[in-house]
Amino acid sequence: MQKATFYHAGCSVCLSAEHQFAAALDPSKFTVEVVNFADAPQRIAEAEKAGVVSVPAFVINGAAFHINFGASMADVKGSK
Amino acid sequence: MQKATFYHAGCSVCLSAEHQFAAALDPSKFTVEVVNFADAPQRIAEAEKAGVVSVPAFVINGAAFHINFGASMADVKGSK
Repeated sequence: MQKATFYHAGCSVCLSAEHQFAAALDPSKFTVEVVNFADAPQRIAEAEKAGVVSVPAFVINGAAFHINFGASMADVKGSK
Repeated sequence: MQKATFYHAGCSVCLSAEHQFAAALDPSKFTVEVVNFADAPQRIAEAEKAGVVSVPAFVINGAAFHINFGASMADVKGSK
């Protein structure tokens, strides 16, 4: 089972991506964890380490995939 | 069954996204079509109509989701 982590910040772009993608991944292949930085600001460091520069983004097998553009990580950190 | 169309232009960013995402969608929910504009330039118009402004991108249920950034549609059209 592979791990896919979906990082977001509660914005409308994020929620659209969450509804379409987080629920779309094959459950027989992926365990999907959804992380909202508004609830879990302590997860910001791990996301940045994985290469996340904006939200919403998936990290799958250590690679960051940014889905459209909701907010930069600078914005996310500024809004804590 | 929902339809997910993955548009790309053969670039390395595109191929990485294709390998991670096109194969990751739940096959019980989605029929995934992969369109390479290098092979099918006649599909550019439908992608732009759906809101695709760069590749790689998915169109799922009529909504465009851009994954990272490989090339703009202007670049795609310029390289035909």
